[in-house]
Amino acid sequence: MLFSRLAPTKFVIRLEKGDDILPSLRRFAAENRIGAGVFEGIGSLNTVKLGHYDFHTKDYKFEVFSEDLEILSLSGNIATMDEAPLPHAHVTLGKRDFSVIGGHLDKGSLANMVEIGLSSLPGKLVKSRDDEVGLNLLQLRRRLNQAARKS
Amino acid sequence: MLFSRLAPTKFVIRLEKGDDILPSLRRFAAENRIGAGVFEGIGSLNTVKLGHYDFHTKDYKFEVFSEDLEILSLSGNIATMDEAPLPHAHVTLGKRDFSVIGGHLDKGSLANMVEIGLSSLPGKLVKSRDDEVGLNLLQLRRRLNQAARKS
Amino acid sequence: MLFSRLAPTKFVIRLEKGDDILPSLRRFAAENRIGAGVFEGIGSLNTVKLGHYDFHTKDYKFEVFSEDLEILSLSGNIATMDEAPLPHAHVTLGKRDFSVIGGHLDKGSLANMVEIGLSSLPGKLVKSRDDEVGLNLLQLRRRLNQAARKS
Repeated sequence: MLFSRLAPTKFVIRLEKGDDILPSLRRFAAENRIGAGVFEGIGSLNTVKLGHYDFHTKDYKFEVFSEDLEILSLSGNIATMDEAPLPHAHVTLGKRDFSVIGGHLDKGSLANMVEIGLSSLPGKLVKSRDDEVGLNLLQLRRRLNQAARKS
Repeated sequence: MLFSRLAPTKFVIRLEKGDDILPSLRRFAAENRIGAGVFEGIGSLNTVKLGHYDFHTKDYKFEVFSEDLEILSLSGNIATMDEAPLPHAHVTLGKRDFSVIGGHLDKGSLANMVEIGLSSLPGKLVKSRDDEVGLNLLQLRRRLNQAARKS
Repeated sequence: MLFSRLAPTKFVIRLEKGDDILPSLRRFAAENRIGAGVFEGIGSLNTVKLGHYDFHTKDYKFEVFSEDLEILSLSGNIATMDEAPLPHAHVTLGKRDFSVIGGHLDKGSLANMVEIGLSSLPGKLVKSRDDEVGLNLLQLRRRLNQAARKS
């Protein structure tokens, strides 16, 4: 895992063969004291553990795919939970016949080569467990009252 | 719909169950006086109205899908048309079997939970109707003369 | 190809019918002296040359698709190689039946209309050929030592 800091809040990262994508992003954020950020990437991976969340059963279904897949989009953010950085990412992946699969990216997804642009944000994005939804949710300060805004 | 402003031009938004994605972004932009911006998001929705535009017939074909779908990418921008913010977004969506569908995102697309990073831009991005193309097009100031640039 | 510079490092680009996406981005970067950047876009194209890279054979497989396809995500970066800007992009594309294809975007991919947000970065992102991987790789300064970081 290589990176450059091109501006105070702008990082470019390259993951190398075998780098586990999500733990790599977590280590990168910890190392660079990033408590909030957004990232986008493209590249290729050879193993992916995809998840799909069912909001009724509140359960993830997982499946592992082991083949060279183009990363058409790797999109996500970095928040902070229990004082540690928590990356959350989804991926769209292209097969050799140009068909596409995708889902929530879980650990155990191994890069061939990934190029990532990451913008850190000031302060912290805090996540905490929401039992009703069954997920870790971003705790954000302000609410836009939709009922009051029909415009 | 919750949000935080982490920096003068950097917002993080979380849509909640039932939030209509496109109108929510429009209200968010109106409320925060955003006349130009770009955004990226991931999450999940339970109803989506997808569009596909045919440049010959100048007509959208629409279809509604009603199931829990992972939002693998929600990508778009905010412009201004007739003095009101106009969000434009495309989505890539992952099914429970990890197959993928996608298209132009229309209103009537309801979040389960969506995390969005939005960067506002100074000034306004103006859109206006183009009858030849049949779409609302960004009115941008400068043209790169391709004929003169064969390099 | 039209564009506006909304802030010192923020450009919005609109590609028009027939613009070859990758060479257009290269010319745009050359014209505006951009040696490093990241971009995201949505829109539509009518011809696309998709690639899929096999890390064992070190060979791209290409295929051309000629139909109106929604660009669900156009994601990539601009580096510099041999003193010239080198854009690298992947695309996810939506068909009329809302199924999805995608891959590495090669030249010969022609826009119907594409809206792109591009952030330039200070300095240069340098790419150079890596014979072991068989690709042009970002040369980045710092390495995160994974072995030493089990946290």
